[in-house]
Amino acid sequence: WLKINVLDLHFADVAEILRPLSNDEAKYIYYLMDEDQQADVLMELDEDVRDRFLASLSTKEIADQLENLDSDDAADILGELSDEQVQEVISQMQDNDAIGDIVDLLNYDEDTAGGLMQKEFIKARVDWPVDRALVELRRQAEDVEQVFTIYVVDDLGKLVGVLSLKRLLFAKPKTKIADLFNGKNIISVKTSEDAEEVAKIMEKYDLVSLPVVDLQNKLVGRITIDDMVDFIKEEADKDFQLASGISEKIESSSTVWKISRARLPWLVIGMLGGILGAQVISGFEAQITSVPTLAFFIPLITAMGGNVGVQSSAIVVQSLAKGNDLFGSVLKKIGKETLVALTNGVLLSSLMYGIGMLFEGTTLAIVVSLSLFTVIIFASIFGTLIPLILNKYKIDPALATGPFVTTLNDVLGLFIYFTIGMLLYHI
Amino acid sequence: WLKINVLDLHFADVAEILRPLSNDEAKYIYYLMDEDQQADVLMELDEDVRDRFLASLSTKEIADQLENLDSDDAADILGELSDEQVQEVISQMQDNDAIGDIVDLLNYDEDTAGGLMQKEFIKARVDWPVDRALVELRRQAEDVEQVFTIYVVDDLGKLVGVLSLKRLLFAKPKTKIADLFNGKNIISVKTSEDAEEVAKIMEKYDLVSLPVVDLQNKLVGRITIDDMVDFIKEEADKDFQLASGISEKIESSSTVWKISRARLPWLVIGMLGGILGAQVISGFEAQITSVPTLAFFIPLITAMGGNVGVQSSAIVVQSLAKGNDLFGSVLKKIGKETLVALTNGVLLSSLMYGIGMLFEGTTLAIVVSLSLFTVIIFASIFGTLIPLILNKYKIDPALATGPFVTTLNDVLGLFIYFTIGMLLYHI
Ligand SMILES: [Mg+2]
Ligand SMILES: [Mg+2]
Ligand SMILES: [Mg+2]
Ligand SMILES: [Mg+2]
Ligand SMILES: [Mg+2]
Ligand SMILES: [Mg+2]
Ligand SMILES: [Mg+2]
Ligand SMILES: [Mg+2]
Ligand SMILES: [Mg+2]
Ligand SMILES: [Mg+2]
Ligand SMILES: [Mg+2]
Ligand SMILES: [Mg+2]
Ligand SMILES: [Mg+2]
Repeated sequence: WLKINVLDLHFADVAEILRPLSNDEAKYIYYLMDEDQQADVLMELDEDVRDRFLASLSTKEIADQLENLDSDDAADILGELSDEQVQEVISQMQDNDAIGDIVDLLNYDEDTAGGLMQKEFIKARVDWPVDRALVELRRQAEDVEQVFTIYVVDDLGKLVGVLSLKRLLFAKPKTKIADLFNGKNIISVKTSEDAEEVAKIMEKYDLVSLPVVDLQNKLVGRITIDDMVDFIKEEADKDFQLASGISEKIESSSTVWKISRARLPWLVIGMLGGILGAQVISGFEAQITSVPTLAFFIPLITAMGGNVGVQSSAIVVQSLAKGNDLFGSVLKKIGKETLVALTNGVLLSSLMYGIGMLFEGTTLAIVVSLSLFTVIIFASIFGTLIPLILNKYKIDPALATGPFVTTLNDVLGLFIYFTIGMLLYHI
Repeated sequence: WLKINVLDLHFADVAEILRPLSNDEAKYIYYLMDEDQQADVLMELDEDVRDRFLASLSTKEIADQLENLDSDDAADILGELSDEQVQEVISQMQDNDAIGDIVDLLNYDEDTAGGLMQKEFIKARVDWPVDRALVELRRQAEDVEQVFTIYVVDDLGKLVGVLSLKRLLFAKPKTKIADLFNGKNIISVKTSEDAEEVAKIMEKYDLVSLPVVDLQNKLVGRITIDDMVDFIKEEADKDFQLASGISEKIESSSTVWKISRARLPWLVIGMLGGILGAQVISGFEAQITSVPTLAFFIPLITAMGGNVGVQSSAIVVQSLAKGNDLFGSVLKKIGKETLVALTNGVLLSSLMYGIGMLFEGTTLAIVVSLSLFTVIIFASIFGTLIPLILNKYKIDPALATGPFVTTLNDVLGLFIYFTIGMLLYHI
């Protein structure tokens, strides 16, 4: 019963069924499937479920699984094991081609084109006629699950163009590949290309697969869009976490200690900021003693500084991520942010002036609304500058929208507020 | 010179060249290209550049452009025009098939599968032999730029399966499609399916194109991965902006007033929170007058409450977005967050106790560290609960990681802090 039902499901759905099961149960169902299905399911499991499952297998069993996987996935799985285990697993694999591919892929950094590519692709020699190409390609296609584009190479294996399956399908048998393929505007990347750059290229040119070449322009692999989509999602998650003050990639299934550790750095920075803030306020102790009302608006000033700063930096971070503004002038950006800040500053501080009048009286209303206005302007400028500066020093600017900007603006805002209070109250 | 050079470039690169040019210059270069290139370049332009460029064209010129575009892109462009303009443009188009496709696509909401699909796809009847299919498909393929998968339909036009180009390429001429195609685990969506759901399906099953069917399971369109990648990126940008307190989708090129407006809602909420905070503190005026040092640590308490809350909610928002935890128990989530909060709370308040001792003395050290601990615990719980509650009421939980959680935690934190202060100082 199980066998019939599970085999009829799509692999992604089988993976979901396996998630809550124990290793023994999962293993039982897993081995009911045929090898291709096993491989697909394995790659579809969440990382932590997969690690747990693999840990329950012997190195021989792992080796068998790897032979069914695409080379990129096999390399990724080996990349998570210890060096010893890797050696043991590889020594138990039988298929020498597969071993060669995997060992080659293990050389590349996971954040580069080489780390994303797979060795399964289809290539045709530029001097083949269509009928010969069809025979060769049929053989190659056995190993390649999704054929998107045929890469055309010269006799040295250098990439010279691409050919769509569609064109090949409708071509006459004796036509030469040389007369069919597109050799203009070939888009390829080097193995060392940064993964974020690769994502931008695939998005920009709407590619479903991208050929990867070595330094001599020899075709060595391809990157497929499904892996790129996974990468794009992961990067977006990471940026979202960074902006929320979480410094290490975590899942909701990570351990308590790992989650705590990922959060601590920012909390410590936030705390140091708070202590610095306390230092600033203590410098104005006399003012607070004589006008305690001043203390009431401390949270308003710090909250607004933080919010405005985060908003400004979010926009800058996004346009930096798009690579839009590498040449856009920094001054222009700050100018625009300042205009936005002026608009919002005038609106909000007028509102605050009214509320301040109701709360206490003219002096307080002026102090609070004037400080609010000044804080909004400064917070915008800092919120814009900090990500630009971080980016300049090759630090991920997504850091800036987090507690970093908030903390800085808290301290600055307090200083502005109490200074204005001191001056206007003549204390 | 221009002509030769521009024609040799990839369309995405031409689009980049056009961006900084005036409309007249852009138009000049644009009309140097052939129709296919024009269409590709047009879709690659940034939205604001495209709008400006289209505004400079007559309705007749727009109509001509639309005929070269894929139906989904044409419908999207029309969707940005006024009803009157749409009618005028459509009345000037010549190709009746294209008109029919576009008018049909205009019916669908842009956030549904119907709004993302295009009418260009390749279909084969299940009863055709391969040689007949090849003839029919060649005709169909003229209009379809990227052929990924052939959809197999029955005589009523209902989707019954898919066939890869690869299989067709290597099949014998007299084989029936019925013997070649894959009719198991067909993945399709209805036109009304939510776009985020569509994205999840394409990611999960690693699809490069997804067939769209109507209520009767008749094939009406397909969604391609390049459009899905654009959608995924846009959603990620929107979530990042929401979490940063920006309520309307904006680009760094939007007008000052639009940017201001997108930011005001959260700033007003933050300001109201600040005023509420002032109310809370004013309730403790007597305590501040007798122990002004209490005021020093206001920013520390509010900042930490905000940071912890944002961290907690970010994780919940992400796991909700993945659809992981629809059935995960809420209590379990809160339990785990509480453990993380306890860990970080103990570490940070011990540190704070030490610093408080240096700063002033035992009582203050106890008040601040105890409040900090309590605030961390409460902020975690709120940070976890708020996105879960928003999600339950179908409000985008990404709102929660923004100023919303921060503001609430500010007010709550102040209340906890001053209450503890009042009790321990016996004032
Ligand atoms: Mg497979
Ligand atoms: Mg890899
Ligand atoms: Mg694109
Ligand atoms: Mg596109
Ligand atoms: Mg792959
Ligand atoms: Mg990044
Ligand atoms: Mg086109
Ligand atoms: Mg549309
Ligand atoms: Mg996927
Ligand atoms: Mg996958
Ligand atoms: Mg499209
Ligand atoms: Mg969303
Ligand atoms: Mg704050």
